[in-house]
Amino acid sequence: MSSASHLIDAFHGRYARCIDDGSLEEWPYFFAERCRYRVTTSDNYRQGLEAGVIWANSRTMLVDRVSALRDANIYERHAYRHLLGRAYVTEETGTEIEAETGFLVLRITRDGPTVIFASGRYIDRFELEGQALILKHRDVVCDSSQIDTLLALPL
Amino acid sequence: MSSASHLIDAFHGRYARCIDDGSLEEWPYFFAERCRYRVTTSDNYRQGLEAGVIWANSRTMLVDRVSALRDANIYERHAYRHLLGRAYVTEETGTEIEAETGFLVLRITRDGPTVIFASGRYIDRFELEGQALILKHRDVVCDSSQIDTLLALPL
Amino acid sequence: MSSASHLIDAFHGRYARCIDDGSLEEWPYFFAERCRYRVTTSDNYRQGLEAGVIWANSRTMLVDRVSALRDANIYERHAYRHLLGRAYVTEETGTEIEAETGFLVLRITRDGPTVIFASGRYIDRFELEGQALILKHRDVVCDSSQIDTLLALPL
Repeated sequence: MSSASHLIDAFHGRYARCIDDGSLEEWPYFFAERCRYRVTTSDNYRQGLEAGVIWANSRTMLVDRVSALRDANIYERHAYRHLLGRAYVTEETGTEIEAETGFLVLRITRDGPTVIFASGRYIDRFELEGQALILKHRDVVCDSSQIDTLLALPL
Repeated sequence: MSSASHLIDAFHGRYARCIDDGSLEEWPYFFAERCRYRVTTSDNYRQGLEAGVIWANSRTMLVDRVSALRDANIYERHAYRHLLGRAYVTEETGTEIEAETGFLVLRITRDGPTVIFASGRYIDRFELEGQALILKHRDVVCDSSQIDTLLALPL
Repeated sequence: MSSASHLIDAFHGRYARCIDDGSLEEWPYFFAERCRYRVTTSDNYRQGLEAGVIWANSRTMLVDRVSALRDANIYERHAYRHLLGRAYVTEETGTEIEAETGFLVLRITRDGPTVIFASGRYIDRFELEGQALILKHRDVVCDSSQIDTLLALPL
């Protein structure tokens, strides 16, 4: 119930809204220039396997990913809805905060059914810059190993 | 992370509990006497189409809707469960607060499966009356265009 | 928006993380030594029927339940993901707090689909011990009467 968890909850709110509104071009700016963004599965994560489904170590790579998604026109065909749990702060030292947060992402297909796309948890390291948070690391650990190839979208 | 978002989160908690507990008669009183309540789809909303699935501009109309639901005995046959995201305050001026909040509504059929009924976002304008909030506008923007005719229930 | 609801939200965050991470052995310690833990259905609860799906009145019984789950090897074959709503404080007297909180639990099967396992609400009585909360009563009221026999897992 620290104020850190409130800051993170507010961050998550902006992050989810950005993706769900389709404002993908803004998404990389939730991350520091030098950052880590990984999407992996619970099984891989538990075994300490580095190989994730997605891996990036700079904001530039995230910008490139968004461009690729736009070019492939994949993102436009679906909509997503993020529902996030409460952030659980695991470590807080100086301006660094580590936290875990459960998530559920729904995929809405045009005139089709709405389905569960992914569930899991964010394992995050934030840097506090003034009053704002920025992501240094985000490991997206999906509960299921059955990962859709469309997982190209930001989670 | 303003205190406005905390007030709204608490409001959402009461609102969701009211509907999920089946206390429909209390639902209109979350709204001001002169208000706007619309249910629409993401596609319609983006195109600026006024025509929504549901439209009301007074609390009296909402009271009438509840009576109609009770008469039709529709509501009793199902239960609903609202899960709401964190409120994102988009504007705050004087006693008016505008915010957006993601939602997921499940439908539970008696002895049948629990299914995803709707997802989307509330686009709200609240008025602060003393320490309590009241809805001036609620646009319920559903992600999917596939809207169940049972959507007569409050969202 | 009382600070009680913030304490409870933080409690829920820890509770959900404990189960979803598979740290079942820690789960009984969210409860007081003398406690009540019941899982029941909305229909039974409304009718005031005592008979629940699960019933325990001490932490020791919860510890036994975890052992049984481990022995039966049921828990390991699935993963769960809890998504909780905002706690709604219904009563606060001295060091006792009563609250209700909506929940959604997903079940993830290895390489299979992720499905809605249960939705419902926690009806809780907490005791404030110093700055920490402990559960005196938790009634888990499931929305659906269609309860999976695997419901042996903690909810």
